[in-house]
Amino acid sequence: MEKIKQLQEKFSSFMDSVAFDYRPAELYAPITYTLFQKGKRLRPMLCLLACDLFGGSLDEALYPALGLETFHNSTLLHDDIMDQAPLRRGMETVYKKWNTNMAILSGDAMIALAFDFVLRTPRSSETARLLAQVHREVCEGQQYDLNFETQPVVSIPEYMEMIRLKTAVLLATSLQMGAVVAGADEQSQRALYDFGIAIGMAFQLQDDVLDCYGDESVFGKKTGGDIVENKKTYMLLKALELASPEMKETLTRWCSTPTVEPVEKIQAVIACYDALHVKAEAEQVIADYHRQADALLDSVRIPEERKQPLRDYARMLLGRSK
Amino acid sequence: MEKIKQLQEKFSSFMDSVAFDYRPAELYAPITYTLFQKGKRLRPMLCLLACDLFGGSLDEALYPALGLETFHNSTLLHDDIMDQAPLRRGMETVYKKWNTNMAILSGDAMIALAFDFVLRTPRSSETARLLAQVHREVCEGQQYDLNFETQPVVSIPEYMEMIRLKTAVLLATSLQMGAVVAGADEQSQRALYDFGIAIGMAFQLQDDVLDCYGDESVFGKKTGGDIVENKKTYMLLKALELASPEMKETLTRWCSTPTVEPVEKIQAVIACYDALHVKAEAEQVIADYHRQADALLDSVRIPEERKQPLRDYARMLLGRSK
Repeated sequence: MEKIKQLQEKFSSFMDSVAFDYRPAELYAPITYTLFQKGKRLRPMLCLLACDLFGGSLDEALYPALGLETFHNSTLLHDDIMDQAPLRRGMETVYKKWNTNMAILSGDAMIALAFDFVLRTPRSSETARLLAQVHREVCEGQQYDLNFETQPVVSIPEYMEMIRLKTAVLLATSLQMGAVVAGADEQSQRALYDFGIAIGMAFQLQDDVLDCYGDESVFGKKTGGDIVENKKTYMLLKALELASPEMKETLTRWCSTPTVEPVEKIQAVIACYDALHVKAEAEQVIADYHRQADALLDSVRIPEERKQPLRDYARMLLGRSK
Repeated sequence: MEKIKQLQEKFSSFMDSVAFDYRPAELYAPITYTLFQKGKRLRPMLCLLACDLFGGSLDEALYPALGLETFHNSTLLHDDIMDQAPLRRGMETVYKKWNTNMAILSGDAMIALAFDFVLRTPRSSETARLLAQVHREVCEGQQYDLNFETQPVVSIPEYMEMIRLKTAVLLATSLQMGAVVAGADEQSQRALYDFGIAIGMAFQLQDDVLDCYGDESVFGKKTGGDIVENKKTYMLLKALELASPEMKETLTRWCSTPTVEPVEKIQAVIACYDALHVKAEAEQVIADYHRQADALLDSVRIPEERKQPLRDYARMLLGRSK
């Protein structure tokens, strides 16, 4: 865990050293507001851990890592408008605190900054290409998510493809970008990318489980949010798949009527999940992805002890620290 | 004019050959709707003309040219939300035809595509860097423009800086990108960029003049739009600068009351402009920029006859064709 802490501190002091003193101030205020909130800085960490794994220069990975974090935050600014989300990390969202126009425009400027940052490294055309690719995929994922709101039936494979695009590809790309900066060969890059996809899928499914069963004080947000918003999560889709016709009707009724009593609704829906053992099903899939990720990391031809920090970090992310 | 027509046709058939068959279809429908409208395709033309000027490979400039056009159109999608504009090029704007969420997300995907496209050329890290830089500047220009709506006094230098960022830098970058693709030296790149700034400033000021004095059938939109919207254009700012205290009061009154009778308001404001000879003032500044642009092009060490297409094109843009 020494290495993880060391990289977190390195990235944090690097971020503090970057001057966001561009003008006009109105454009950049929402950007620093968002970027300097206490987040996990997951994507920069994955980039630095991957760079370190292949013995690359961490200094050459710092700007790309910041570019990934900046890009990720740009998507939050725009997604929060689309989802009409009032809060993010316990703070007012940008479109609420300022307004929609500011959230659109500052989000756009963040995309520009993200590309600027990932280009500040020797292998810049490769890092920029990775960002352009993942940027498009994340938009596609968000579009599928928007489509699901009005799509009457969503299959589990469709849901998996949506979370792959919306969440997993950016984690995978963060790892690949670190590998690229370190000059890793294509086969290793690919293995790291696939490792990231597996971890990303597990991470999002874990989030779906925690929304129903998480400890609010640890999870950091109210449980049952997805249920109240009628979100088509893995939990709901799996429950619909496993349910008897009667229970399916019960679930469908809860999900199609406006929420009057959130607590009652959450309890009723979770009671269905409990009866169908949906949590165990989800945990099984998460464990499978985690195993798959471990095997992918095994395949990288690097001494095992060098892989430990990345393994530990993935385990931490999935709440499976020993 | 042969060369201009030839490049226009080359770019047009190139665009027709690019398959925009990505998925999900919902995300890309607004993109093809926007990109395949009949526009001037000014930025691709400047890129190709600059590449040709330095004897570069036009084939290597086609994707960067498309990237510039795609980026420009992404800004239109987002600006039209911010400006609540119902029409663009005589067609419904994306946020009107679809909705705000679609215009945000498709605009984002266009930015991703724009970077993808400018990276498809041998000197890709330079072209990507140029796009990242100009992307940020265009956001800054839009922010100044938004600020002006509520800023009580806007000076002419502030206005000039806003249009430089919002309009001129992208024309300048389009030229520089063509020069970069052709492998031109930095001094020539700089001269072309500065030429583009001068042309861009003249172009925007011309647009301000045409909003008051243009022939609607040629200009393609209703005259007086800026006046009705109380836009702080060069015309208004110059008029306020030149006006007597009484006329200044008249102008300020017209601009601060809600428009009830557009025709009456337009006539009244233009009567002030006429009395103050604002049109002649603006045309003077436009001519100065045009002269400055010509001198910058003179400074490029290339045989004069090769520069003719670019000179002709700039003259055409400014409505000064012989």
